[in-house]
Amino acid sequence: MAAQPPARPRHLLPLSLGLLQGVLLLFFALFVTYDKPSARAEDVSLVANQLYGIFPFFQDIQVMLVVGLGLLLTFLPRYGLSVLTHNFLLLNFSTQWALVLQGLLQHFHHGQVHLDLHSLLTAEFAAVTVLISVGAVLGRTSLCQLLVVAACEVPVYLASEWVIITHLGVLDVGGTITIHVFSCYFGLGVSKALFGAAQRPVHPKETPTPRSDLTSLVGTLILWVFWPSFVAVPCQPGDAQHRAILNTFLAMSASAVTTVVASSLLEKDGKLSPGHLQNGSLAGGVVIGAVADMAVPPVAALALGSLSAVACTLGFRFLTPLLARKLTLQDQCGIHNLHGLPGVLGAAASAVAVLASPEDNSGSPFTQVSPAGGNTSEVPGGQRGAGGAGGQALCQAAGLAVAVGGSLLAGLLTGAVLRLPCLARPPERLCFDDSLYFTLQDQAESPELGGTAEEGALALKERV
Amino acid sequence: MAAQPPARPRHLLPLSLGLLQGVLLLFFALFVTYDKPSARAEDVSLVANQLYGIFPFFQDIQVMLVVGLGLLLTFLPRYGLSVLTHNFLLLNFSTQWALVLQGLLQHFHHGQVHLDLHSLLTAEFAAVTVLISVGAVLGRTSLCQLLVVAACEVPVYLASEWVIITHLGVLDVGGTITIHVFSCYFGLGVSKALFGAAQRPVHPKETPTPRSDLTSLVGTLILWVFWPSFVAVPCQPGDAQHRAILNTFLAMSASAVTTVVASSLLEKDGKLSPGHLQNGSLAGGVVIGAVADMAVPPVAALALGSLSAVACTLGFRFLTPLLARKLTLQDQCGIHNLHGLPGVLGAAASAVAVLASPEDNSGSPFTQVSPAGGNTSEVPGGQRGAGGAGGQALCQAAGLAVAVGGSLLAGLLTGAVLRLPCLARPPERLCFDDSLYFTLQDQAESPELGGTAEEGALALKERV
Amino acid sequence: MAAQPPARPRHLLPLSLGLLQGVLLLFFALFVTYDKPSARAEDVSLVANQLYGIFPFFQDIQVMLVVGLGLLLTFLPRYGLSVLTHNFLLLNFSTQWALVLQGLLQHFHHGQVHLDLHSLLTAEFAAVTVLISVGAVLGRTSLCQLLVVAACEVPVYLASEWVIITHLGVLDVGGTITIHVFSCYFGLGVSKALFGAAQRPVHPKETPTPRSDLTSLVGTLILWVFWPSFVAVPCQPGDAQHRAILNTFLAMSASAVTTVVASSLLEKDGKLSPGHLQNGSLAGGVVIGAVADMAVPPVAALALGSLSAVACTLGFRFLTPLLARKLTLQDQCGIHNLHGLPGVLGAAASAVAVLASPEDNSGSPFTQVSPAGGNTSEVPGGQRGAGGAGGQALCQAAGLAVAVGGSLLAGLLTGAVLRLPCLARPPERLCFDDSLYFTLQDQAESPELGGTAEEGALALKERV
Repeated sequence: MAAQPPARPRHLLPLSLGLLQGVLLLFFALFVTYDKPSARAEDVSLVANQLYGIFPFFQDIQVMLVVGLGLLLTFLPRYGLSVLTHNFLLLNFSTQWALVLQGLLQHFHHGQVHLDLHSLLTAEFAAVTVLISVGAVLGRTSLCQLLVVAACEVPVYLASEWVIITHLGVLDVGGTITIHVFSCYFGLGVSKALFGAAQRPVHPKETPTPRSDLTSLVGTLILWVFWPSFVAVPCQPGDAQHRAILNTFLAMSASAVTTVVASSLLEKDGKLSPGHLQNGSLAGGVVIGAVADMAVPPVAALALGSLSAVACTLGFRFLTPLLARKLTLQDQCGIHNLHGLPGVLGAAASAVAVLASPEDNSGSPFTQVSPAGGNTSEVPGGQRGAGGAGGQALCQAAGLAVAVGGSLLAGLLTGAVLRLPCLARPPERLCFDDSLYFTLQDQAESPELGGTAEEGALALKERV
Repeated sequence: MAAQPPARPRHLLPLSLGLLQGVLLLFFALFVTYDKPSARAEDVSLVANQLYGIFPFFQDIQVMLVVGLGLLLTFLPRYGLSVLTHNFLLLNFSTQWALVLQGLLQHFHHGQVHLDLHSLLTAEFAAVTVLISVGAVLGRTSLCQLLVVAACEVPVYLASEWVIITHLGVLDVGGTITIHVFSCYFGLGVSKALFGAAQRPVHPKETPTPRSDLTSLVGTLILWVFWPSFVAVPCQPGDAQHRAILNTFLAMSASAVTTVVASSLLEKDGKLSPGHLQNGSLAGGVVIGAVADMAVPPVAALALGSLSAVACTLGFRFLTPLLARKLTLQDQCGIHNLHGLPGVLGAAASAVAVLASPEDNSGSPFTQVSPAGGNTSEVPGGQRGAGGAGGQALCQAAGLAVAVGGSLLAGLLTGAVLRLPCLARPPERLCFDDSLYFTLQDQAESPELGGTAEEGALALKERV
Repeated sequence: MAAQPPARPRHLLPLSLGLLQGVLLLFFALFVTYDKPSARAEDVSLVANQLYGIFPFFQDIQVMLVVGLGLLLTFLPRYGLSVLTHNFLLLNFSTQWALVLQGLLQHFHHGQVHLDLHSLLTAEFAAVTVLISVGAVLGRTSLCQLLVVAACEVPVYLASEWVIITHLGVLDVGGTITIHVFSCYFGLGVSKALFGAAQRPVHPKETPTPRSDLTSLVGTLILWVFWPSFVAVPCQPGDAQHRAILNTFLAMSASAVTTVVASSLLEKDGKLSPGHLQNGSLAGGVVIGAVADMAVPPVAALALGSLSAVACTLGFRFLTPLLARKLTLQDQCGIHNLHGLPGVLGAAASAVAVLASPEDNSGSPFTQVSPAGGNTSEVPGGQRGAGGAGGQALCQAAGLAVAVGGSLLAGLLTGAVLRLPCLARPPERLCFDDSLYFTLQDQAESPELGGTAEEGALALKERV
């Protein structure tokens, strides 16, 4: 009876993954080609230069998602292999799934699907939302359930992104609204619908150790270093991209320092909480996304970074426990503090920035490349939306509302799907434990280490 | 008597390394110069742009070899310092040795040796073969023995690479045949000749722990992220390079997902094996090398990535135990599964791709920059080899045969050299143990931690 | 009484950090703007290309300082969270402080302060000196004390850099004199003035474990890989930058191999010391800075790398114990061996290189971009300083003298400030211990793990 729940996912996981790989292969075989190579010499040089312009950004983002985000999640001390693997697998699964869906849309319009580095990037942005959302339910869900989340979230994200960017014309180059706010409330919706109203005690294995906090902090530092690439890659080359890099750096630098201030004021004896540092230092990257390439003064980037770090730290200290108590809302990684609060703050800031910007800023246009489309739309100061600055500010607010509402609703529905009996949750005692997913050799082999009690104890310790 | 074997290498190691440094200094003093700087302004700008085109790739490859590959090998839980150091030292030793040998060849032809970033890259490719080969004998060999492997393998690689690329005209931009297949069978040859027919029981210290599996997986992820740079750097700038990046990404993404499918089907209870993930996820990068820049459809990259991951996982599950039992062949890191099987698959795929490609692909020429030469040879569709597509396919097969045969033979000879009495193997109880190579301070200092039994136990645990 | 010292810094830390953030915000609000965007299309393309030329270097340096240097310091086994956090916080604090000071200077001259990636880079170079200096006193100082060091060192560095580069015209593209020598003697001055003449026994928690040595070595490898970017970023684009990259690579490769030779000759039984490897491998990067872009032959880079590694290793083996015994000088991380000795060697080498260079090297001019100014000054062979090569060599020596003398004096004064009663040092038993700065959850939560003795032991072990 106890072996029953893990037995079914055994077949489910390879089946569902194999199915996606099959669909992917079929779709690629039928529709996807590379761009026709350039014949003329000057075109070749142009293609090469474009590649050198985007490829370093692409690699930076890959490091963030695969290594940085993976390590950030290893704060669960006995679940490190699982979080690294889940993060890596979800990234690949979601990117491939986004490539298929994007390709289908493109196919309907143009008949043929062309693949390039830009399409990969936009597909990865879709995958990022999945990686963020699952942070709310990490450790108490099976890998199959996480794949279902990915399967549901990617199409919803693509639709939401189309509404917000293409239809409403929201300015959001760094994905503050379309990626961070969206994925946060999607994840919270999934968590609420999946776990319901049951209060859960602290699981003994979810408490970080100094060593797991250390690897997690290394993940934070990697994300912190490369975040400017994430924000700047969809910007127009030239000044807008330069400004986006600088704004992101300033915001993240301010949030790093402010997190230390806030944490030491909130914690006992003026000490620091590792969790605050791991998350608060990154809040500046979330908040700055929507205004990074706008003609805001540098001081605004600094102020936003500081504010977001304060919001994030206060969220961990007060809001998360409150939500857990009042709404029985579980948020394992605190995504509401890192992505929700700074995201909403960033959306509000973008509306203010639009209102405050001079009308005749013909020299510093609002430029915007949709992260999920690649289509550039110049929105000069005097022609924003229907009613100038006011209209554009309303658009930003409407975009935020769509992101929050749509994602919450879709998340709740997805969470309900996760309760299907065929998707068994891991039993409580195997939550946050690598042994649920991995054949850990030392457990089988440790007797070979030797018969003495001392060596047995040594083997035991090695497993720790 | 027991102290005798480590006593001799004490002098051997600094002597041999010091000798190489001396040879290197002498050679550089006599022959090597930098290119004459450009005098004209447009040339300066050209040099700068070329540098910006290649330097980020170079740095990516450095991260792969120094950090990624080093961490991948730390799956041996008590041997982490040693593998990181051996990997780092072998990389530097082999690169310097390859620079001297390449320079000598160049000197015979041109009188003067010019050093630039391209020469460094081709020397590093030679070093990669050493880093892969020693994976077969890791942990049971002394550092001196590994240096002898490097000293022997680099010239053989340079010769084999000349035969395969320059003489036979094999297309292999990502080193599938010249690097991966070659180094795999070289390493297996060394292992067979060195360890002979003795069956070895599992050493208690070679079993990974969850923590050592974690750091090893981080190494895998770093290699996975930067592999496209490794494949794309020798490509012609422009479309071919862009295509190589995309193909490599697709192949590696497919192999990441397929590894999870294959591992969970093969393992007990549908769990995953950390070793499968650490290696299978990278198989796509090995297999795609020979066809990465060809005009293959994207679906072929996906299919090759999936196939190679299946081959790699099956290899770990069935072939490695079989080879150990039947041929008493030791392969510590499973290099045959990661480099041998996918490499052979990739070579076969390149022959098929050549046959299947349209004859009049004048718009998409086969372009090839030799990884060890830097000389570009355009091989348009209609003029490949002697007999068009068929001739070129035969060339690919011949290249594979040369790589397998030559490396096996040279590896066996090198392994025989390693049995010389002056190159003592480490005693069995010190295999896979950092204390063989490092003065670990805590062993000497731990008594200072305090006299109580509790603190002594704490010190013991810290060492774990 | 025992709780008194940590109580005061509780308020001091957030107050002082908050104050800096306030000053920074005010200063940015009043004075700092971005460059006016380019209006013409060709300018946009130029800006984009300049960005692509510098941004990958910038990211490499960020990885070095945030991840590489942070990990290098984790050799203290129970202090990993603290060193990562201190390093990260000091980097951000010092960079912001340097931006303000630089901006003030610029404001006095031009009325308005323009921020771009170059200003960030020069501010980060100032921050590097702080990160190096605090290595001398790490573990026995409070975070507040380290912030005071940063507050004092940044203005002194800016002044010293102005004297050395702008006033004396010293050639030092990679910061050998201005950054490494300066920060080393500043740190030693702080250490001497702070700790006085008291002999300190080895603290039980400062002895590295194999695991902490491993993470520290990973930090070394990251620094080793990206060091060429650090040296090359201020170079003139084109040949000089290409040469700086090659020279740095050669020097670091030589020092990696030579460190192994030297360490195995100096240590008992021919073993290696992890500390030698962690530092000696990087000595080549320090020594090459002053001559990296000069027209020196490649063999000089190799020789300098080898020499510096020998100096560094000998320093750890003999000089550090000697200084501790004779001068009671504490140097926790051995910064004198990694930055001091190779730095002085590099300064001497630059004087020799200037003397040895041909007078009529019009084709290979000495080019120099000041790391702290961004102003390019061409110094062709025949017009160096007042008296040609001889005058320039004297300048190099004078620069070294200024760096050593000025930094020692300023460091001693700063160390005296650190003895102020309001800046309490951590009590001896909490030195080198994360629990001084962090609320480590497992200490509070471990009772929840279960009541049995076995689980209590497990919890204990997890904390190790």
